[in-house]
Amino acid sequence: MKEAEGYLRHIRDCNHWNPENFRPLFIDDKCVGRLKPKMVKALAQWPNLFSISENRVNFTREISEMDDRTQALDEIVNALVEQGVISHSHGERYPVTASGREDAFATIDRTAAPYFGLRAYGQHLNGYVRSGEGIKLWIARRASDRKIYPGKLDNMVAGGLPQSLGFAENLQKECWEEAAVPCELALSAIPVGALTYCRETETGLKPDTLYCYDLELPEDFVPQNTDGEVEAFYLMNLEEVARIVRQTDEFKLNCNLVVIDFMIRHGFLSPGAPDYLEIVEGLHEKL
Amino acid sequence: MKEAEGYLRHIRDCNHWNPENFRPLFIDDKCVGRLKPKMVKALAQWPNLFSISENRVNFTREISEMDDRTQALDEIVNALVEQGVISHSHGERYPVTASGREDAFATIDRTAAPYFGLRAYGQHLNGYVRSGEGIKLWIARRASDRKIYPGKLDNMVAGGLPQSLGFAENLQKECWEEAAVPCELALSAIPVGALTYCRETETGLKPDTLYCYDLELPEDFVPQNTDGEVEAFYLMNLEEVARIVRQTDEFKLNCNLVVIDFMIRHGFLSPGAPDYLEIVEGLHEKL
Repeated sequence: MKEAEGYLRHIRDCNHWNPENFRPLFIDDKCVGRLKPKMVKALAQWPNLFSISENRVNFTREISEMDDRTQALDEIVNALVEQGVISHSHGERYPVTASGREDAFATIDRTAAPYFGLRAYGQHLNGYVRSGEGIKLWIARRASDRKIYPGKLDNMVAGGLPQSLGFAENLQKECWEEAAVPCELALSAIPVGALTYCRETETGLKPDTLYCYDLELPEDFVPQNTDGEVEAFYLMNLEEVARIVRQTDEFKLNCNLVVIDFMIRHGFLSPGAPDYLEIVEGLHEKL
Repeated sequence: MKEAEGYLRHIRDCNHWNPENFRPLFIDDKCVGRLKPKMVKALAQWPNLFSISENRVNFTREISEMDDRTQALDEIVNALVEQGVISHSHGERYPVTASGREDAFATIDRTAAPYFGLRAYGQHLNGYVRSGEGIKLWIARRASDRKIYPGKLDNMVAGGLPQSLGFAENLQKECWEEAAVPCELALSAIPVGALTYCRETETGLKPDTLYCYDLELPEDFVPQNTDGEVEAFYLMNLEEVARIVRQTDEFKLNCNLVVIDFMIRHGFLSPGAPDYLEIVEGLHEKL
């Protein structure tokens, strides 16, 4: 496998979806999600809430308040979990929005989001050390009992961004839970941008936004997991991390993008590298 | 003007173009450029080289060698300069390519590129200092005798990337010419990504790629122009630079994007800022 192909295959895998498999879901004339035929059929149970046409599904205009919309969606999600259409509830709340979290029309259970093809938001943190041998990254290995990507490699800290928490607040919480990073140290993490991708899954569609952070750590800091999500941490040379990304599928899929972005921003992947522009642009798909 | 609007208006201005005003130009079934009606009409003078249909213009398949294509294009460009269709020649060579510089079909005079709507490539360098008061940026003011954007603010070092020079080589050259940055110091600049935009101009279209670099400078380094392109340098707080970008048109248009990208990567513009995602994504238009 060529060097560029090693990176690009993850970007392509993250952006693999077919618009023909979905019907757009609108609220107030804004497209907030996309539905597979199975979900369109399931939502037909509530003709007072969804008007279904060949090209789109409209969530009724009669509910104009955010809380009422949220309540109506919760009742639907609960019914669909009971019917086995949606696998389970997660407990965390995600926004229902056409753009940023601040423009949410409602909130919905996190697990339900991909069934409706709603935008999802997460925070991923690169914990790194500047050593005499260059930059090293702290890499996590996910616990083997995780539902998603058990045993795979992961960014030092990464988690979903629920609607109820601010960026700094959620990042601190995740930093503590996943790697025992003290609050003050977590606050020194630098937000460095956002990556976007859109991926079709068995259950639906995930148009995802990853807010990325760099946290430079003291050489004597050793991350320790406190919530059971991580089974080990490794301090790796960038060369080694890059090799794993290029040659293997050891990382949880979207974490590859976060590592590639880190390598680009720190000059480890440079403009002369094969397909550099395609890699850079591939990290910023339009949602 | 709202904060986000101050940034977004430059991004929108850089990406303002109407596909209906152009006919695509193909070589070997790859779209390499876009032509305004005036250029389509001008190229009809060479029916053996261009086949013109309603939807596209094809550069003849009979010329299969890069040097032959380059020679044929040079003859055309010279004729069009004589006819006054193209304003003048520049001397620097730009690639004719559908993707990266490494896949060029031919080269062409730099001034001719936008007339054909060809991709252009540049390198922009943020020279910065970490001081006790936070990050400061070195900002250039363009000489008042420049043809383009005279007297406007500019990144510390910025220049076109001719096909004949490698990334490092051209960056060193520009660093020396524009700011008297010694070779060794210039080599420590870190490539941090690439920005893309596409803008319609009076003469044609500019689908542009800006390779960006960060160069941390010693506090006692003072840039000095050596080639007459810059009339002054200022060391400014990021807050001041941000205010100028938001509230004025003092910067050469595309330099605003490079400054905004710097602010995002260094956490000066953070995820909670209004329209953060639109700003981040707007720096990476698909070309």
